[in-house]
Amino acid sequence: MGLSMVRLDAGWGILEGENIALLDTPYPSHRELMQAYFDGPSLFATESLQRVTRNSAILQAPVSGDIQVFCQGLNYASHRAEGGSSAKKSAEKGQNLVFSKPSSSICGPNDDIVRPAGCELLDYEIELALVLKKDLPAHTPVTEDNVLEYVGGIAIANDVSARDFMFGAPMMQWFKGKGHRTFCPTGPVLYLIDPDERDLINNLQLTLKLNGEVRQLATTDQLIFKPGETLTEIASFADINQGDMLLTGTPGGVILNATPKVGLAILLNFTNDTRRREKLVKTQKSVRYLQPGDKLELEIQAVDGSLSLGKQLNTVVEATDNLG
Amino acid sequence: MGLSMVRLDAGWGILEGENIALLDTPYPSHRELMQAYFDGPSLFATESLQRVTRNSAILQAPVSGDIQVFCQGLNYASHRAEGGSSAKKSAEKGQNLVFSKPSSSICGPNDDIVRPAGCELLDYEIELALVLKKDLPAHTPVTEDNVLEYVGGIAIANDVSARDFMFGAPMMQWFKGKGHRTFCPTGPVLYLIDPDERDLINNLQLTLKLNGEVRQLATTDQLIFKPGETLTEIASFADINQGDMLLTGTPGGVILNATPKVGLAILLNFTNDTRRREKLVKTQKSVRYLQPGDKLELEIQAVDGSLSLGKQLNTVVEATDNLG
Repeated sequence: MGLSMVRLDAGWGILEGENIALLDTPYPSHRELMQAYFDGPSLFATESLQRVTRNSAILQAPVSGDIQVFCQGLNYASHRAEGGSSAKKSAEKGQNLVFSKPSSSICGPNDDIVRPAGCELLDYEIELALVLKKDLPAHTPVTEDNVLEYVGGIAIANDVSARDFMFGAPMMQWFKGKGHRTFCPTGPVLYLIDPDERDLINNLQLTLKLNGEVRQLATTDQLIFKPGETLTEIASFADINQGDMLLTGTPGGVILNATPKVGLAILLNFTNDTRRREKLVKTQKSVRYLQPGDKLELEIQAVDGSLSLGKQLNTVVEATDNLG
Repeated sequence: MGLSMVRLDAGWGILEGENIALLDTPYPSHRELMQAYFDGPSLFATESLQRVTRNSAILQAPVSGDIQVFCQGLNYASHRAEGGSSAKKSAEKGQNLVFSKPSSSICGPNDDIVRPAGCELLDYEIELALVLKKDLPAHTPVTEDNVLEYVGGIAIANDVSARDFMFGAPMMQWFKGKGHRTFCPTGPVLYLIDPDERDLINNLQLTLKLNGEVRQLATTDQLIFKPGETLTEIASFADINQGDMLLTGTPGGVILNATPKVGLAILLNFTNDTRRREKLVKTQKSVRYLQPGDKLELEIQAVDGSLSLGKQLNTVVEATDNLG
């Protein structure tokens, strides 16, 4: 078994049921925390530690804001199908779609998600996040066998997405559509995964509820590109280092459903940003996107019930600034 | 006048004609360098400094690899036109297209550009890079008047792009198409720009030659979204901090010319990655993309000849690894 870490204002804690055992060492980031744990797990004995109750603690994101956030798109067949991509060709894996979010999008697991000014099509995406415990050297082949030599932590992440921003600029505005502050709630738990828990990553169940209703439900054995092959691919072209995070894609059930009408609205207006966005929004006028006051509840658990990565609870709020 | 800084193995130097005056202080990155310069330019007196000749020095990128690299797409009308986007609607600015490159794509101004395995459509993009001298707080309005309160350095950058990778994945693979190692040669000069040189940024001439032939030639007064408004927009949604770099887009003259045939190849195969890429490559079969051995020469100078950001000289080489 690994260790379920949480981050409080007061520092790092180990989650034990309804209590949190507070570490004495003020590791400045999850990098030093992971380094210390994997160098000597025995340092993390909890007998003598002070406790606080879980309910009394305000939990922060368990990763710091100075990392790279790599993301995968369309990595579940169910999400590909609703995205209108390769739905009929499940035998063909296609390309592994990789993009990035700025790390300032990371926020705490219970923080409000701010809908930016001008955003009409705000959507959610529950994802399993993998956190690296050491640098992945260029051109390292990572396999399902050695993936836990590099991945040291797993957590819940929400790849919040403004669909109208994504499709409202030339050639797809992924970065702006997915990069706003509060668009990456992370945690609460950073589970430090032991090297012998290899099967765990592929046996996690993701559940996202919107206002109490289940909207996304899937297991990570459905990932099209597995963590090992994705890390291999990223390391083949870019540096991915200790502490960096990989969001492994979202399953079906997001709000945007790319019907043929949506596809046509985008394709027929490909060279005109304003019209493309207007037409897209028009196709969605009867669809309810995230609104201020909406409550999201995200959970990831082991399929066999042996582990929980905790629960994200977020409320959508309107932006209060006027610069969007 | 500001100061033309270069980075050598031995540390930082001030470029003076054919000589480089070597600073005694080993600033660990361009952040500390800029901080020191703008706090007290008098520290940078060169009288007593040791000199080396410019030709004997191997120059590195003048920015470190731990920054965020923000980029603008389609920010010159001439490049929009060849990209098939809004060519007829120059009155409409559309959306400011912002994306990112991983900082591991940064390389030295004379380093080889590695064409990745499997890449057939390798292209260049000369751009003016702006480097921040201090953090830009969220929702800061940056104008043409106060932009030099935040921008402390300017440099040449090349936003090297693998067109077949960009268009060969669902929804545009910008990150992978533009994010490979050596896809962002930067420097040689980091010009520390004085707050009273406000007009300089809008009066620079960019020149890119391929094997001695001029392919891109433009001036920065043609930027559609100006530095101030772009920084305002980025700060409205993401943190952009001291040392971070903004590539302001490339003018016309890149190799890819999005003829209607190209547009159709992409749009008609929008849901099939493999076929879209094949069809795109097919439309380009008579076009000569960058090949191993090609020489690129990039220069940025003040229109009035008062300043040069030096010259990038790169050779394209084939990848030697087999993982791409």
